[in-house]
Amino acid sequence: MSIDAALRALTPLLGDRLSVSKSDLLAHGQSETHFDVIPPDGVVYPRSAQDVSDIVKICSQHRCPIIGYGAGTSLEGHTLAIQGGIAMDFRDMANVVKINDEDMTVRVGPGITREALNQELRATGLFFPVDPGANASIGGMASTRASGTTAVRYGTMRDNVIGLEVVMADGRIVRTGTGARKSSAGYDLTALLVGSEGTLGLITELTLKLQGQPEGIAAATCAFDTIDAAVEAVTSTIAMGIPMARIEFLDAASVAAVNAHSKADFPETPHLMVEFHGSQTGVAEQAERFGEIAHDSGGSAFDWATNAEDRTRLWQMRHHAYWAILASRPGSSAIVTDVCVPISNLAQAVRDTQDDIEASGLPAPILGHVGDGNFHAILLIDPNSADEKRIAKELSERMAQRALSMGGTITGEHGVGMGKLGYMSSEHGAGWDVMGQIKRALDPHNILNPGKVVQVNG
Amino acid sequence: MSIDAALRALTPLLGDRLSVSKSDLLAHGQSETHFDVIPPDGVVYPRSAQDVSDIVKICSQHRCPIIGYGAGTSLEGHTLAIQGGIAMDFRDMANVVKINDEDMTVRVGPGITREALNQELRATGLFFPVDPGANASIGGMASTRASGTTAVRYGTMRDNVIGLEVVMADGRIVRTGTGARKSSAGYDLTALLVGSEGTLGLITELTLKLQGQPEGIAAATCAFDTIDAAVEAVTSTIAMGIPMARIEFLDAASVAAVNAHSKADFPETPHLMVEFHGSQTGVAEQAERFGEIAHDSGGSAFDWATNAEDRTRLWQMRHHAYWAILASRPGSSAIVTDVCVPISNLAQAVRDTQDDIEASGLPAPILGHVGDGNFHAILLIDPNSADEKRIAKELSERMAQRALSMGGTITGEHGVGMGKLGYMSSEHGAGWDVMGQIKRALDPHNILNPGKVVQVNG
Ligand SMILES: Cc1cc2nc3c(=O)[nH]c(=O)nc-3n(C[C@H](O)[C@H](O)[C@H](O)COP(=O)(O)OP(=O)(O)OC[C@H]3O[C@@H](n4cnc5c(N)ncnc54)[C@H](O)[C@@H]3O)c2cc1C
Ligand SMILES: Cc1cc2nc3c(=O)[nH]c(=O)nc-3n(C[C@H](O)[C@H](O)[C@H](O)COP(=O)(O)OP(=O)(O)OC[C@H]3O[C@@H](n4cnc5c(N)ncnc54)[C@H](O)[C@@H]3O)c2cc1C
Repeated sequence: MSIDAALRALTPLLGDRLSVSKSDLLAHGQSETHFDVIPPDGVVYPRSAQDVSDIVKICSQHRCPIIGYGAGTSLEGHTLAIQGGIAMDFRDMANVVKINDEDMTVRVGPGITREALNQELRATGLFFPVDPGANASIGGMASTRASGTTAVRYGTMRDNVIGLEVVMADGRIVRTGTGARKSSAGYDLTALLVGSEGTLGLITELTLKLQGQPEGIAAATCAFDTIDAAVEAVTSTIAMGIPMARIEFLDAASVAAVNAHSKADFPETPHLMVEFHGSQTGVAEQAERFGEIAHDSGGSAFDWATNAEDRTRLWQMRHHAYWAILASRPGSSAIVTDVCVPISNLAQAVRDTQDDIEASGLPAPILGHVGDGNFHAILLIDPNSADEKRIAKELSERMAQRALSMGGTITGEHGVGMGKLGYMSSEHGAGWDVMGQIKRALDPHNILNPGKVVQVNG
Repeated sequence: MSIDAALRALTPLLGDRLSVSKSDLLAHGQSETHFDVIPPDGVVYPRSAQDVSDIVKICSQHRCPIIGYGAGTSLEGHTLAIQGGIAMDFRDMANVVKINDEDMTVRVGPGITREALNQELRATGLFFPVDPGANASIGGMASTRASGTTAVRYGTMRDNVIGLEVVMADGRIVRTGTGARKSSAGYDLTALLVGSEGTLGLITELTLKLQGQPEGIAAATCAFDTIDAAVEAVTSTIAMGIPMARIEFLDAASVAAVNAHSKADFPETPHLMVEFHGSQTGVAEQAERFGEIAHDSGGSAFDWATNAEDRTRLWQMRHHAYWAILASRPGSSAIVTDVCVPISNLAQAVRDTQDDIEASGLPAPILGHVGDGNFHAILLIDPNSADEKRIAKELSERMAQRALSMGGTITGEHGVGMGKLGYMSSEHGAGWDVMGQIKRALDPHNILNPGKVVQVNG
């Protein structure tokens, strides 16, 4: 078999940096959500772009699939070895290569996690803003075009990756982007690779934009009686042009789960969690104007997190909400929806989703980065119930189709992996074929994360 | 000849929307800079995506080149018909399709100019921020990944185009992006097409992000004794995290040209032109802090444009600076350089450029969007002097190579066209081959603006 041949050829090159131990294979065959375990045939731990290139050349020769692996926190079965092959785990390429304070950029290895990176940046007064709930790797975040609570202010990985070093499917090492803030020098390969989920190239280094720590920060939670009231406060805030750094929505069920998991005592009603960044006076002004809007929309129980620890605790609770929600139904697994709609349709989309959830009978808390029009229903299912799985999949499909009919997208930030493959044609039409053409041109033997994102026989 | 066959086949389809009149061909064979006139064999004026698709299918069949044409203001010979074929002029697809106030987006035809668009948006309180000096078409701006004075705040076309309708080289009509603010649904075709200069597809509609008119605006000019002092003020302002909406540099020669052309009376020394956007108090705070920085760097003759007319006049002078500079040497034509470097190297890059210019003996005013690290030397040459042309080209090449050695790019915003083709390999290495692979996959017969941006026989 070609995969076996590849493993044999890799052994002398990698020694114990090639593992076929059962526990390693299993660990890399799992995912955070409802997918079955699908282990790879081997796991490699490269230490440099040259390593990656050497591995890719061997795998290319033997037509052996290679699946990039960061922290394994992706939610659509992205890293599962559905055609076998090797997982390429970037844990040993997790260094900070160089911080350029003056240019507010940093070069990092793909394996570094966002928390480790921000730890390293502490002394500089700079930070990297993109913050998915999990402590994901920067390479994985680039590959899924991740975002998080701060995207409403600082953008997603699309906006915060300015250059890459990538190993292509034939082993060539390519650098995209420059150290400059902008360029018109040809096709935007950086943007093409960001969000490509390891199907076009393997990222071996990233240059990231950094932000200065704001002089002033104010964060608050605000309770609402109804979902509608909370969403109305969001759309009004956006319409008024108030620059939010974060504006997160949690429905009553999400709040209850967070209370239980984080020993908090929020009133168990729909909530917004907000944060403002700017100068001291700017932040005070923004907070005051948001307070008025929230009040007009019926918000109450305003709670300002005045010091840094309170703020850290607040956002930690938010970041752990997924696990809190999972824990709210012990033994359950989750189908995580991830629609994103134009702001003008947000209220309707959330309302309709709520109705769907009620009709389904499934526990399915809703939360999300509503400042972007992006929200998730976490559909909690009994993994042993085929019925619940079917109902959840139907519900998930209805949400995706509704998002499309409202001019939105089937995935705001989690990506396609295996889970969203079935909706790609509905979203993109002929554009999905164009993606397939690009895939075939750049990975003619279909060895990079095959079976994900695109269809190669289009 | 295949082009003749294409023209014959297009005639019944287009009637008088296909022109082969000498004046039309000449008008489309010119460029704003030093390139020789190279007219196409015909000019077509489509009215819809379907028209474009029909035309492309015929041209594809006959292997006839098609060159997208917006306002023809690009600076690197982008629209010249170096392999013959037809110019596709989008002047009749210049409509506003739909304004979505609530989502702060607009859908437009590619032929609309940025000034016409902002005129149409007037009543909404929204505006489209990207503003190259010329009154370019939005389709052309997307195709060159244009920016302008406000990119430091609002980004370039990369950041402000959220979706496209595009006709591919085989006539397929493809929609990229959605109405949502972000998406992780597969490859970022929007970003791939933005900046592709008509070599991958023809843009027939764009969805753009809009901005709310800021509540407060303050603009000023500030004179400095030396270039160094002015650039130092820029880097300090950035380091302090003061959010500028615009920060433009003009050297003494540029100021002199502007004075002569716009009947202004700025002191003829290096200048910064700045603008701040925000709430009234925010703007006042920013302006004050900038004032302190400028003062510390030796800035003087601070002149605040307090009312809207003064501001309009100020930015009009800036936008017309290119023509002012051209007029400063009657009968000259220009080679326009467009390097962009990391901010940490900006001062050195400008200094070295100045030294080069002095050594060359050519008149070559420097100006630029320094907040992005982007500046231009406008090399004024006697079009009949082979010597001057050679000296200018050497100087331009030295600037490009220096930008690369400093971690920057050969073109911050103007694009590649013909003029920068020779440096693409230096900037991108193997990445340029990857661009060629994409081009071959999406335009196998090389009919879309052939000879520009990429090399198809790589
Ligand atoms: C609790 C929780 C909360 C979350 N919240 C968010 C959120 O707010 N926003 C959000 O966007 N996501 C969120 N996610 C999803 C997940 O964190 C993101 O998708 C993240 O970007 C995945 O990063 P990772 O390092 O875990 O990548 P992995 O799961 O390891 O891999 C993801 C994909 O990238 C590829 N890949 C990884 N590294 C490389 C590389 N170096 N080169 C090429 N390809 C590579 C893989 O092949 C795979 O296709 C959440 C997940 C959890 C569990
Ligand atoms: C005085 C002056 C100042 C300038 N200042 C700036 C500046 O500050 N910043 C900046 O970025 N540029 C600047 N430019 C350059 C120029 O304005 C930009 O490059 C602009 O984006 C070109 O737009 P256009 O409509 O004129 O395009 P064109 O010149 O007509 O075409 C440009 C390219 O786009 C392609 N194209 C056009 N329309 C389409 C379409 N619908 N589909 C596919 N391809 C298409 C063409 O084939 C060509 O390759 C300046 C130019 C002048 C003369």
